[in-house]
Amino acid sequence: MAATDARPPNPPTASSGPTPHFADQLITRVRDLGHPLCVGLDPHLAPISDLFRKGSMARDAEQTADAVEAFLGAMIDRLAGRVAAIKPQIAFFEQLGWRGIRVLDGLMRRAKEAELLVVLDAKRGDIGSTAEGYASAYLAKDAVMPADALTLNPYLGFDTIEPFARVAGDAGRGLFVLVRTSNPGSADLQDRDIAGEPLFGLVADGLARFEKSLAGSTTPWSSLGVVVGATWPEQARRVREALPNALFLVPGYGAQGGSAAAAVQGFVPGPKGLEGGLVNSSRGVLFPPAAREATDARTWDAAIDAALDEAINELGNAVQR
Amino acid sequence: MAATDARPPNPPTASSGPTPHFADQLITRVRDLGHPLCVGLDPHLAPISDLFRKGSMARDAEQTADAVEAFLGAMIDRLAGRVAAIKPQIAFFEQLGWRGIRVLDGLMRRAKEAELLVVLDAKRGDIGSTAEGYASAYLAKDAVMPADALTLNPYLGFDTIEPFARVAGDAGRGLFVLVRTSNPGSADLQDRDIAGEPLFGLVADGLARFEKSLAGSTTPWSSLGVVVGATWPEQARRVREALPNALFLVPGYGAQGGSAAAAVQGFVPGPKGLEGGLVNSSRGVLFPPAAREATDARTWDAAIDAALDEAINELGNAVQR
Repeated sequence: MAATDARPPNPPTASSGPTPHFADQLITRVRDLGHPLCVGLDPHLAPISDLFRKGSMARDAEQTADAVEAFLGAMIDRLAGRVAAIKPQIAFFEQLGWRGIRVLDGLMRRAKEAELLVVLDAKRGDIGSTAEGYASAYLAKDAVMPADALTLNPYLGFDTIEPFARVAGDAGRGLFVLVRTSNPGSADLQDRDIAGEPLFGLVADGLARFEKSLAGSTTPWSSLGVVVGATWPEQARRVREALPNALFLVPGYGAQGGSAAAAVQGFVPGPKGLEGGLVNSSRGVLFPPAAREATDARTWDAAIDAALDEAINELGNAVQR
Repeated sequence: MAATDARPPNPPTASSGPTPHFADQLITRVRDLGHPLCVGLDPHLAPISDLFRKGSMARDAEQTADAVEAFLGAMIDRLAGRVAAIKPQIAFFEQLGWRGIRVLDGLMRRAKEAELLVVLDAKRGDIGSTAEGYASAYLAKDAVMPADALTLNPYLGFDTIEPFARVAGDAGRGLFVLVRTSNPGSADLQDRDIAGEPLFGLVADGLARFEKSLAGSTTPWSSLGVVVGATWPEQARRVREALPNALFLVPGYGAQGGSAAAAVQGFVPGPKGLEGGLVNSSRGVLFPPAAREATDARTWDAAIDAALDEAINELGNAVQR
């Protein structure tokens, strides 16, 4: 009674051909670009420029979804060739119901055509056959909405990571498991002391077997990644000790208060500077004031490009230290 | 920049009129029915009877979604008036992409018309504005896909429960936070000892403030609920001590090996027997062998009714001990 039985095949995607390896692909692109910036697509509705709205978003679910699609489609055009990856936050699409998921599906395909890797930020986690359901939705070779990587929550235990790791391994996808998050309350559970170790350290230790099973071949990096907030550089070093080859996905840079230097604390020397993951910025790039106020497309493009340049330069400098 | 700004209003739902209170409603219905059975809607595809399939599900995403809709629509007809609540597992709908979410949306509306409470099993959890996005998707008064209650994951910390509790309180909805899950690996983190207490106990203790803020008025029960697996009756008693008024959502009964007696270990005496939550069965009711093999609707109906009678009788007896 496997959840994957009899699922319909989907249109062919870029995953046909030799199976890619998420971490090898990602690190290669990051080295070429010279910076680890990932842009989070968190489509809060209020700050979306009127440039992308037809009619009133306050009155029609279809028009709201169209505006989000137009806004993020234009954003993908700005990001193509400039960053290795984007990170859509699925909550903001779920907020629009099935129309939001249809928009996300289209944007993920558009990102793939633009050669942007897609880290789907969904923080999923569930037992056995349910985990298989999520994995077949987003990670399998014939996934209905294929992402290059998916974020996971480990609270249910390491047996619930296994179905994701198995499917990710088969399809060359990546996982980012929450270890130490960037919010103030993350200490409530994640920092609690268990026989001399913080809980987040035990989570990191328990992921070591998946780090091995998802190891890369052309780089030292594993497609088993972890989420470690930019606001906690000491914790980042503890996690790096436990998982020397795990990619880091670092939220909290910029709007949430983490500096570029703090964000790359878990990175290590590579052939082109410090490397080892992605540093995410969402609001800082999506919603710079000049873009929110733009009344024509050229001004909006320039405002986004300026915000992007600033984040790229700051992180590019941080990895060159 | 609140995630809830400028969202489109949705068609009016049963939530207009005086604000309901999830726990009061639920317990009242459970008392009337005499049992705490909740039926989990986990639409694994392989075991769905051919009765619900038009054409080959292996070839067409639209036809697959249609078959799931027909199957679960027929199931809702069997369940109406017999159980207080259903629990759709969103992973199995996400597996079908946006078409699956559209089917889930329709089924949730159909369940509401049938006066079944809907516990959406999504195990969401995220920081601040993202948690608000999920809450406005599923819990707000004008939610795009209103559920009566939502399951949550606490790993990110108690500050990430707050936006859900605030919205749930405003709209009269319920929350079920994962405390001790039913899978074998749940002990990896949830049972770890922290200053003499298991982690799951600290989670339960930390939820006490939300238990208070979501208290009911016509019953002793709070709309802050917890998930405690039927496979762990001793842990259920520990959680009940910490949260005397929290509803329990108990997975693991039936197919996962938990007995009816074990499933109600966290229940307490009420006016009509033991009470205090819901005991979930998914596969046992959805996919009895006689239903999988049925070649006509009448045989299928009878097979589902027989499986339902068995679970209802077993749990009805367990709460009368």
